[in-house]
Amino acid sequence: MLYNKALKDYKKLQSDFGQKLKLLRERQNLSLRDLAARCELDFSKIGKIEAGQTNLKLSSIFELAKGLGVEAKELLNF
Amino acid sequence: MLYNKALKDYKKLQSDFGQKLKLLRERQNLSLRDLAARCELDFSKIGKIEAGQTNLKLSSIFELAKGLGVEAKELLNF
Repeated sequence: MLYNKALKDYKKLQSDFGQKLKLLRERQNLSLRDLAARCELDFSKIGKIEAGQTNLKLSSIFELAKGLGVEAKELLNF
Repeated sequence: MLYNKALKDYKKLQSDFGQKLKLLRERQNLSLRDLAARCELDFSKIGKIEAGQTNLKLSSIFELAKGLGVEAKELLNF
């Protein structure tokens, strides 16, 4: 999936990432607080990420991957 | 590879990402300016990212992937 900055597609990119994160979290029956307890991110921040409201950083991607016990690249697999 | 915030490993994470980016860029015989011309990032910013000096954002990862013509998850494959 290509995201073209000219078309301000980053909202779509953030939304796609958020949906993938939510899918992976729910597949493991983890609540936002469960996931937050496993990584260095606050549950409210994870909620905003899932809602597509955050252009998150590389370190946050790896924190989420750590919390989910998956490889970081899996979170970009959409 | 797990990066533990407590151990301030983000420098290592940024460095690993930068090396992977440089490897993929040089494999295609692209200069920093060549790559910058193919995506929405300035060549000096790409240089800083390769030097491990940037905790870059999700959108920048996708811009770099677009510029290299690879899937974004490939950039996290290290």
